Amino acid sequence: MTEVRTRIPKAVVKRLSLYLRVLQEREDSGSDKISSNELAQALGFNSAQVRKDLAHFGQFGVPGFGYHAGELRESLKRILGTDRRVRVALVGMGNLGRALTSYHGFSRQGFEVVCAFDLVAGTEDAPAAPVPLFPVEELESRLKELRVDFAILTVPREAAQDVTNRLVEAGVTAILNFVPQRLSVPSHVQVHYVDLSIEMETLNFYIAPPG
Amino acid sequence: MTEVRTRIPKAVVKRLSLYLRVLQEREDSGSDKISSNELAQALGFNSAQVRKDLAHFGQFGVPGFGYHAGELRESLKRILGTDRRVRVALVGMGNLGRALTSYHGFSRQGFEVVCAFDLVAGTEDAPAAPVPLFPVEELESRLKELRVDFAILTVPREAAQDVTNRLVEAGVTAILNFVPQRLSVPSHVQVHYVDLSIEMETLNFYIAPPG
Repeated sequence: MTEVRTRIPKAVVKRLSLYLRVLQEREDSGSDKISSNELAQALGFNSAQVRKDLAHFGQFGVPGFGYHAGELRESLKRILGTDRRVRVALVGMGNLGRALTSYHGFSRQGFEVVCAFDLVAGTEDAPAAPVPLFPVEELESRLKELRVDFAILTVPREAAQDVTNRLVEAGVTAILNFVPQRLSVPSHVQVHYVDLSIEMETLNFYIAPPG
Repeated sequence: MTEVRTRIPKAVVKRLSLYLRVLQEREDSGSDKISSNELAQALGFNSAQVRKDLAHFGQFGVPGFGYHAGELRESLKRILGTDRRVRVALVGMGNLGRALTSYHGFSRQGFEVVCAFDLVAGTEDAPAAPVPLFPVEELESRLKELRVDFAILTVPREAAQDVTNRLVEAGVTAILNFVPQRLSVPSHVQVHYVDLSIEMETLNFYIAPPG
């Protein structure tokens, strides 16, 4: 299925996450049944979209019944690879790095930030960190020791490519990059870019006066 | 143009931001010329996509020349509404709130966080803040005084809807919501959701073992 994965558009995968959120919110509601229509309406989509997205991954619904919410939730977690804990390292303990190491949303979805790296680790400037904080010199050895292949990058822009090269050398295959800088990586490494100012601009577009 | 705006898909608007980033990176390169092909290649798109996206907003290129980078940059900022400083308030000075009030990417793109609100403002638990920090009781009066209609929400989940109601009452029309909670707002208010764990899940999907 690995070959197929890379052909699934990112927009489809993001919607799987949204479906999972709706199902997680339902978890405590007592009802184990949900129709594609209910799932769609909770997100402002239409039900054909839901069925089409899920059809990429198999047959999930029961005709005339809908989905078993619990089963679909487990299936989506398996598809997203979060049915096991995912071990994550963070590089760059500035303000954003510190916020992300203690972001509860990550652990709720199966991601565990197991360590962080920063130049100031071990010095008196080292911030209080909710995870073990190591100096960047130990990056390669710690990532191997802790079996981490997923990294969050929140370093200053000028350090981004250099740190990326070291992450790739150490066997990291997924990088969530918060640095506003394109990264050059080999083809087996996936980089996703999070640019929070793009979210701001997109939102602003819809409220900006005509011009 | 306001009516038209709401009909432009979010994906198109996000790409405008990406084009703007490429043009901003070019700003210091000395060359004022860029083709749709160069713009597309810098982002891994194709040039037809670039031309189609821009065509929503008018005629920008010069046939046989390409785009004047500086002019296109200014046009994109005007379209995104960031040709003027956008005044933003942040509610909830936890770790993430503190990170966002000092996020340089915002000011670089024309957004100015002019104030923040938190329950602890004025108490000895108040964090050091790079912007004026007010108690939540002053939300309505301060937003009016500071002419803010754009808010970033980073409060605990249980407070999210209540704070949203007060923001809307105070005239806010755009909310960037980092809280994993659907918000109910009147139709004239735009809410964009940023769920960082969705970014993690999407990235993880592409590296997860087949299953």
